[in-house]
Amino acid sequence: MPDFIPRNPDFERSVRESWTTQSFLRLLGAEITAVAPGAVETRLPWRADLCQQHGYFHAGVIATLADVTGGYSAYSMLPAGWSMLSTEFKVNLISPAIGECLVARGQLLKAGRTLFPARVDVFALKDGNEKLVAAMQMTLMGLEDRPELEAR
Amino acid sequence: MPDFIPRNPDFERSVRESWTTQSFLRLLGAEITAVAPGAVETRLPWRADLCQQHGYFHAGVIATLADVTGGYSAYSMLPAGWSMLSTEFKVNLISPAIGECLVARGQLLKAGRTLFPARVDVFALKDGNEKLVAAMQMTLMGLEDRPELEAR
Amino acid sequence: MPDFIPRNPDFERSVRESWTTQSFLRLLGAEITAVAPGAVETRLPWRADLCQQHGYFHAGVIATLADVTGGYSAYSMLPAGWSMLSTEFKVNLISPAIGECLVARGQLLKAGRTLFPARVDVFALKDGNEKLVAAMQMTLMGLEDRPELEAR
Amino acid sequence: MPDFIPRNPDFERSVRESWTTQSFLRLLGAEITAVAPGAVETRLPWRADLCQQHGYFHAGVIATLADVTGGYSAYSMLPAGWSMLSTEFKVNLISPAIGECLVARGQLLKAGRTLFPARVDVFALKDGNEKLVAAMQMTLMGLEDRPELEAR
Repeated sequence: MPDFIPRNPDFERSVRESWTTQSFLRLLGAEITAVAPGAVETRLPWRADLCQQHGYFHAGVIATLADVTGGYSAYSMLPAGWSMLSTEFKVNLISPAIGECLVARGQLLKAGRTLFPARVDVFALKDGNEKLVAAMQMTLMGLEDRPELEAR
Repeated sequence: MPDFIPRNPDFERSVRESWTTQSFLRLLGAEITAVAPGAVETRLPWRADLCQQHGYFHAGVIATLADVTGGYSAYSMLPAGWSMLSTEFKVNLISPAIGECLVARGQLLKAGRTLFPARVDVFALKDGNEKLVAAMQMTLMGLEDRPELEAR
Repeated sequence: MPDFIPRNPDFERSVRESWTTQSFLRLLGAEITAVAPGAVETRLPWRADLCQQHGYFHAGVIATLADVTGGYSAYSMLPAGWSMLSTEFKVNLISPAIGECLVARGQLLKAGRTLFPARVDVFALKDGNEKLVAAMQMTLMGLEDRPELEAR
Repeated sequence: MPDFIPRNPDFERSVRESWTTQSFLRLLGAEITAVAPGAVETRLPWRADLCQQHGYFHAGVIATLADVTGGYSAYSMLPAGWSMLSTEFKVNLISPAIGECLVARGQLLKAGRTLFPARVDVFALKDGNEKLVAAMQMTLMGLEDRPELEAR
C-alpha cells in the first residue's frame, strides 16, 4: 500500500465536520470512530428500522456505510476546501449482517489527480466477534471547487 | 429481452406483501408503483433527512432503492414461498440526484436456476422531467427455503 | 436515452483508426461492425485459442470485447484528438458463451465533462440466433491530451 | 481472513492441471507461480501483441489475468471433481500497466456453499519494483457436476 501524506494538515477535523453535514447519516445513526490519512473506520448500531425482512441489517444500510467510509478515506487526502463525490461502487454481500453493530474500514488504493479508488470491508460485531459481511470496491472523484451540478 | 413467465400466479401480491416486511423501506418512505413479471417500478419522495451535504438524495438512498427494485424484479419470477437475496450490486452515480422524488425501474436479465442478474435505472423527477441519475447492475439469488444464514 | 451530438464531425473515422492501434484486438480478431454517436457494435469470431476449458469463449475474451465496445462508444463522443481510458468495468456472465461469434453492443449513458458511463450487452450468435451471454456497466474517462501516465 | 482448509487434499495439482485446459491462457502466455488454499499467484510477461494503443498491457489482458487468478483461488477450495465458474467481476484500472510483466495475487474472501467471493490485486513489475495497476472484486460459483450449460 502506498504511503499517504495528507495535503490538508487538518484533515481529521475536516473529515469529522463534513460527516455531520450529511443528514442521512444522522437518520441511520452512523458514527466515525477513527480517521487516518487514506483510511477511515466507522460504525453503525443495529436498530429495528434498519432491517430487511429477517431483522438483519438491510443491504442498503450496509452499502451506505461502506460508501461513506470509502468516501471519507479519500476525503482525508484532499486539499482543504475540496469536495469528494462517489462516482461508482460495487458491493459483495458475503454473509448475513447479524449483530449489535456494523463496523466498516476503508482503505484508499491511490490518491490520483482526479480519481481515488478505494476498498472497504464491513464487519458485523456479535458477542464480541467480528465477521466479514460485505466488501466494497469503488471510485471517488475529488473536485477543486464546490461540487458543481455537472462536475462528472 | 426474454419473455418472463411467472412461476407464481400470485406474484404481484407476493411482491407487495414482502415489500412491507422490510423496515428500512418504511424508514425511507419508498413505495412500489408497478409490478410485472421480471420488472418492478418504485419511487421515493425527497425528504430533508435522506440527503448528502448539498441536499441531494444520498448515494446510499439511491443504492437502496435500486437494490430493492432489482430484487423485487427477480422476486416476481420466483415460485411461491421462495426467498430472494442480493449477492452483489454495482451502481454508477451519473448525475446529481436533485428532484421531488426518485423513480427506479428494474429489469431482470435472466431467470436462472440459482442466479438472477438484473439492471436498474434510477431517475430524479424534477418539474415533471425525469433525468437518469444512477444505473445499477446486480445479481440476485433465489432460495427454495427460508434464507438460511449461510445459504450463500 | 439522451441525444448524443458528436463533437468530432469525423468521429467514425477516428474510432476506426484508433481501433487499429490496439495490438491485442488484432490478436483476438475483433472487428468493429457499426459506429454511431455514443454507440458502437463489434464482433469476434470463435477460435479454438480463445476458450476456457469447455471450448466456450473465455470470460476474459468477453470482457475485452465489452470493454473496447464501451470504450469506443464513448470515444465517438470525444473532441478530435482526445484520448479515452477505461477506469473501471463490471461484467455479469449470464449464460455460457457458445456460438460462432460474439456480438457486442455498447451504449453511452452520458457524455460528461470527465466521465463517460456506458453499458454493453454481449451476445453469442449460434445458428442465426443471438443469446445474451454477458452485460457490462463501466466508466470511461476522456483526456484532453495524450493519456499521461498518471492522468487518473 | 478466515482459515481456509482445502477439501481436496490434492488441490495444487488440480489447480495446475485445470489451468492447462484453458486455451486462451496459453495464447496469452500466462503462468501460475504459487498455489495455496484460497490464494493463487500468477504472472504474465509483456508481449507486443497484448497491448492497447500506447504499448501498455491491454485492460482486457489485465482483466483476464485477474479473473483466472481469482477463479483458481476459489477452485483450490473445491472438492475434487467440482467445477468453478465466474459469475461476475469488477475491475478498477488504477495506474498504467507498464512493465516487463504483470503479477496477480488472488485471495478468496469466503468459501461458501455456492458462492465464492474473492479479491485480486494486479501489479506491474518494472525494473524490479511492483506497482498496483488494477484491483478486482468478483464472485465465483462452485458446481458439483460438470458445468451444465444453464447451471447459473
